[in-house]
Amino acid sequence: MSFDAEFRNQQFKSVGSRPLRPDGIDKVTGRARYGADFNMPGQLVGRVLRSPHAHARIVRIDTSRAEAVKGVKAVVTAADLPDLTNGDAELLHILDNCMARTKALYDGHAVAAVAAIDAKAAREALKLIEIEYEVLPHVVDVDAAAQSDAPLIDETLFTGGVEPKPAKPSNVANRSEFGHGDVDAGFAQADVIVERSFRTEQAHQGYIEPHACVASCNPDGTADMWVCTQGHFVYRQICADLLGLEVSKLRVTSSEIGGGFGGKTHVWAEPVALALSRKAGRPVKLVMSRDEVFRASGPTSATSIDVKIGARKDGTITAAVAHLRYTNGPYPGMWAELGAMTSFACYDLENVKTVGYEVLVNRPKVAAYRAPSAPMAAFAVESAIDELAGKIGMDPVAFRIRNAAKEGTKSSYGPVYGPIGIGPTLEAAQSHPHMSAPLGPNQGRGMACGFWFNFGGQTCTDLNVNADGTVTLAVGTVDVGGSRASLSLIAAEELGIAYDDVKAVVADTATLGYNDMTDGSRGTFSSSMATISAARNAIDVMRHRAALTWDIPVEDVVWEDGHAKARGENYGNLAPLSVKDIAAESGKTGGPIAGHSELVADGAGVSFATHICDVEVDPETGATRIIRYTVIQDAGKAVHPSYVEGQYQGGAAQGIGWALNEEYIYGEDGRLQNPGFLDYRIPVCSDLPMIDTQILEIPNPNHPYGVRGVGETSIVPPLAAIGNAISNAVGVRMSHIPMSPPRIRAALDGGAGS
Amino acid sequence: MSFDAEFRNQQFKSVGSRPLRPDGIDKVTGRARYGADFNMPGQLVGRVLRSPHAHARIVRIDTSRAEAVKGVKAVVTAADLPDLTNGDAELLHILDNCMARTKALYDGHAVAAVAAIDAKAAREALKLIEIEYEVLPHVVDVDAAAQSDAPLIDETLFTGGVEPKPAKPSNVANRSEFGHGDVDAGFAQADVIVERSFRTEQAHQGYIEPHACVASCNPDGTADMWVCTQGHFVYRQICADLLGLEVSKLRVTSSEIGGGFGGKTHVWAEPVALALSRKAGRPVKLVMSRDEVFRASGPTSATSIDVKIGARKDGTITAAVAHLRYTNGPYPGMWAELGAMTSFACYDLENVKTVGYEVLVNRPKVAAYRAPSAPMAAFAVESAIDELAGKIGMDPVAFRIRNAAKEGTKSSYGPVYGPIGIGPTLEAAQSHPHMSAPLGPNQGRGMACGFWFNFGGQTCTDLNVNADGTVTLAVGTVDVGGSRASLSLIAAEELGIAYDDVKAVVADTATLGYNDMTDGSRGTFSSSMATISAARNAIDVMRHRAALTWDIPVEDVVWEDGHAKARGENYGNLAPLSVKDIAAESGKTGGPIAGHSELVADGAGVSFATHICDVEVDPETGATRIIRYTVIQDAGKAVHPSYVEGQYQGGAAQGIGWALNEEYIYGEDGRLQNPGFLDYRIPVCSDLPMIDTQILEIPNPNHPYGVRGVGETSIVPPLAAIGNAISNAVGVRMSHIPMSPPRIRAALDGGAGS
Repeated sequence: MSFDAEFRNQQFKSVGSRPLRPDGIDKVTGRARYGADFNMPGQLVGRVLRSPHAHARIVRIDTSRAEAVKGVKAVVTAADLPDLTNGDAELLHILDNCMARTKALYDGHAVAAVAAIDAKAAREALKLIEIEYEVLPHVVDVDAAAQSDAPLIDETLFTGGVEPKPAKPSNVANRSEFGHGDVDAGFAQADVIVERSFRTEQAHQGYIEPHACVASCNPDGTADMWVCTQGHFVYRQICADLLGLEVSKLRVTSSEIGGGFGGKTHVWAEPVALALSRKAGRPVKLVMSRDEVFRASGPTSATSIDVKIGARKDGTITAAVAHLRYTNGPYPGMWAELGAMTSFACYDLENVKTVGYEVLVNRPKVAAYRAPSAPMAAFAVESAIDELAGKIGMDPVAFRIRNAAKEGTKSSYGPVYGPIGIGPTLEAAQSHPHMSAPLGPNQGRGMACGFWFNFGGQTCTDLNVNADGTVTLAVGTVDVGGSRASLSLIAAEELGIAYDDVKAVVADTATLGYNDMTDGSRGTFSSSMATISAARNAIDVMRHRAALTWDIPVEDVVWEDGHAKARGENYGNLAPLSVKDIAAESGKTGGPIAGHSELVADGAGVSFATHICDVEVDPETGATRIIRYTVIQDAGKAVHPSYVEGQYQGGAAQGIGWALNEEYIYGEDGRLQNPGFLDYRIPVCSDLPMIDTQILEIPNPNHPYGVRGVGETSIVPPLAAIGNAISNAVGVRMSHIPMSPPRIRAALDGGAGS
Repeated sequence: MSFDAEFRNQQFKSVGSRPLRPDGIDKVTGRARYGADFNMPGQLVGRVLRSPHAHARIVRIDTSRAEAVKGVKAVVTAADLPDLTNGDAELLHILDNCMARTKALYDGHAVAAVAAIDAKAAREALKLIEIEYEVLPHVVDVDAAAQSDAPLIDETLFTGGVEPKPAKPSNVANRSEFGHGDVDAGFAQADVIVERSFRTEQAHQGYIEPHACVASCNPDGTADMWVCTQGHFVYRQICADLLGLEVSKLRVTSSEIGGGFGGKTHVWAEPVALALSRKAGRPVKLVMSRDEVFRASGPTSATSIDVKIGARKDGTITAAVAHLRYTNGPYPGMWAELGAMTSFACYDLENVKTVGYEVLVNRPKVAAYRAPSAPMAAFAVESAIDELAGKIGMDPVAFRIRNAAKEGTKSSYGPVYGPIGIGPTLEAAQSHPHMSAPLGPNQGRGMACGFWFNFGGQTCTDLNVNADGTVTLAVGTVDVGGSRASLSLIAAEELGIAYDDVKAVVADTATLGYNDMTDGSRGTFSSSMATISAARNAIDVMRHRAALTWDIPVEDVVWEDGHAKARGENYGNLAPLSVKDIAAESGKTGGPIAGHSELVADGAGVSFATHICDVEVDPETGATRIIRYTVIQDAGKAVHPSYVEGQYQGGAAQGIGWALNEEYIYGEDGRLQNPGFLDYRIPVCSDLPMIDTQILEIPNPNHPYGVRGVGETSIVPPLAAIGNAISNAVGVRMSHIPMSPPRIRAALDGGAGS
């Protein structure tokens, strides 16, 4: 469907305003209840025992001494989570990651867990679990792991997507290819070619709140779980599958969430908590420590990427190729595939080819991290593009504008674009005052573009009109970035009532239909589709009630400005009825008034951003300071602009941390050496300038208000924008993320980018 | 609407079976979470200070010393609950009952409350609240209070329903009259007349679980409450009104309930808990003690009833009159009105008149108690009927059969009956083996009939079909007696799936539309109407999905036996699709599948019962033992017969306790002398025989399955049945409930019934 005509002429009353956030008071007073802020009577403390080895066969586990500890109510191992996956390999990998079955595959891999009446007993029991390991050779480096002689993570795995099937098993789980045209012919037409390799290190989402849940299993096959998650309906499905529960019997309630950024779209300890509760016969609370979060919940991939781009002297790119190797942790994934899809998505290219390789390593299972896989690909491609622009003597913005994708472009990953915002964000950047701000010594300016798909998916919303005319809105997409506010604005807009008269809550899995995760920037996009649909259904009900009240045909009742109005010559004496008027009489006109919607939200509009960054590099220490940063991004329609700006700023801030400092550092023994915020350095306030934002609104024709997702694209350009800025500041092309002081010093000393 | 044709030929698969109760495991393992089983971080302990006087003006309250106690975070009085009722007298009375405004109106009336970090600090603070009372004359007896010279509870109150308006204020709040015909003419035709006065004492519902809640108010006007209630939507409305909150901003979650029987349809401490939380800025848990439950939550009325009935020698009643005085506690109510309506509802009378008088006394505000007001009226009427049958020498069952109401009878309270069950229950009693069981010395048999209206009302249900084909059913009527099981059976019946594939939960007020209380035996009746409607809506969605899958017109898809089937010559190769089949593909055929319903459930079928009881009275002690008890009642359709039998038995058990022992005993000072289960004697297991039940099914034509309410009627006959049995055993007409040993001894000694 297309809402073109509808949104082109819309005058919004609520949408686009900036009311107070509904969760603000709860959060600043500490009353908001996060994953660890829930307790059940009789609840036990759960703790997980984790492998100290990067790769080891589990020869024997003896839990008898642990079970004998006073206060210990259950000890579980993989034997308590039998394989019920019916040949579903992905599900089996999830299960194996929750609790190692035959091998510990990374430092921190869960191997056993206990539930006890207090933390002391649980800790004591963990120490008494005896595990005999056969330590195996390990590999953590993406390029080393891709070699044919690397230690094999999974001896049964042959690279998929390759014809004919390889003769030998490999750590390269899959090969995927995208593109069109003839790249060889394209390069033959090029006047200038840039070819360069890049590396990025593994980073963690760095959410403040560690994973936490309270699980309670009953002997009758029913269970409840309170959990911090980005998608309680998905957690319900996966946990039910892994534990052998019927979906309807597991009720999952999502807590307030202290950051997720993709990391809370996967289950980690939740199935273990359920298994502990099932065995102990009591509720179990399981809260991960920060050390566990780093070692055993999903970071993003480390990558190794080769890019080759050719252009004519007039600035036209003639061919572009990227080969992308992404770590997946110890199980197959789709991370390189996403990188390969996004690499050249900003550009209108005749000849393009990208190849992704999923590489298994002895590191934790990779999780989604905000526009997962795109920032690394953008770092490589946007760095090469900048270099290419420099080689042909063009301004990097003008060079990108010349090659930018537009409506009708066949994208490098397949689809043909509708109306998109890459051109407008580049043009806005070109004329932005930031571009002409003066730079001092050791300072450099860089810019880069970014792309993200944005998702839609399955979504349900229940909208109930209360007797006083206020509205409760039950939504199923966890609010990670303000969706309760934006959905309240949208319900208010549709119904013609005040924002303050709408109260949105995230309903639990027993009281609302299935919703996909809050991921892919789909929360406000998809739930607003369902909210608009539900509101319109409620309006239909209210039109009927008004018709009943007036005793006129419903066809003669129209809905305008939040009122039912009688449309016709004979109805001059019928005063319009507001939502409050109609609601007050609802008990007498047929009962409570509601609107519902269950739908698949199709047509999430793709999203583009252009970032500009100024840095100052201290040549002595190699330390980089961000002195100016501007985000320009297409929102489709900014429902609550403050939140949109917050998303832009948040993505940039995370990208800055990743670009400059964040990385997993492994020792020779394959153990993580910096599993804490003292040694894994995320940016703090004093590390960041005020991040300026500019919202563009190129309506998404698939949404009644033109909304696109806004949450992820903003993390895509920073690595490249900062890389370009530093390269310009120091005169050396940077090619290894993070560009930490030692790496910049090395680049300055050696003239190489890492 | 009428479902006659639909239900007459129904063959049920699930409805009428007896599966395990879904809350059973939770309740026997102690995992069920009741009102006191919930905690919030930072929660305070709330305690209420109560008046020691039955009637006293509050001259001064000084809370300063209490506020100074370490750990005390808030002290509230009526000043913290300002009158926001906008002239709504009933609401103001609720508010005044929650916290006395100018006068303490009964022993136990709340006058102040504190919230502190622990119980010790709260108790200490209560002691330090200084209250200066001006003690006023009080009255607790119903007849004394109705006298013109009685101490006035409310000096501004003139009896309503009387023309012309009385000259003097009175404790008689209202007079209501029902009936038809000419009773004087009727008595003139009578051969025999019985005229007698009866009294019943005040009883408490005696639920095991005291009132409990956790309230949490935010400075932004939002609030949450976890509470044990029979109607969280109604609690939400009342508390929002009293506290000045928007309805949508107060989210109320109902806990598991440890008995209610009407007593949890009214707010008691909940607004106080909210006021404490609002003032303290922290969550407050408030749990009433047993003493507080007796002194300050609602018991049923004490009554004084005069009955006069005349009959011809052939057994035809020619006229019937009752005057009924019911205590209401210190505020107006409708308790005598309900008594007056139900008094003669079992009979087909030409000349009938009932007059109810609502009498204010210095006792706690009367609450609903299971078929409220009907048992006392039935005691008086059914005792007089028995006496009348005896006087004309007719068998009491045959006498009642002769006068029983039937389809087409104009009831004594107005409406004309549809198909009803009073005749069939009497005929079943007549032929029941109980009637011919031998009686020994000091034993007597009695029987009596009972009536209850049953309610319908506003109801909402959301039914969601999960991807594995199991179903979650969100209902809004609190499950006080098995409605989660019965509604699951009904959803299974409609959808053609297994009972075990349906999981029903009671949704909170933010996630479902408004539902009236679980009262008036409306829970299963009304929520099953909504469940059937929601299931049929879901079936429509599934028919569409099947049509889409098959690419055929939806008109060609029928729903039979839990499957979508293609109906037509060309569709021979299309195998029927089950709910599981359709659900599995739902993500690809349009998203999640659901059905919803918001309705006013009209046409709750009236309900009738006949009870038979055998007693043995110890002539020395006056103690009565129930040796045999049979309940025969029309269920319309018994959805889950075990629960229906449980309701029949539970009502009889409560009636037995009330009939024999339970009563509020007040001292001369107007203080309650037995506020605890040691001195207020409810029956325990060893006091009761096995209570036999017989379910009749006279379908309610207003319900698709013929369902009527079943929960309340069973408490209506016991007082009278036992009274008749004792009267027959001891040879003296008993006229005062409870018929405790001292009263029976007095009757034996004095030959009078009390």
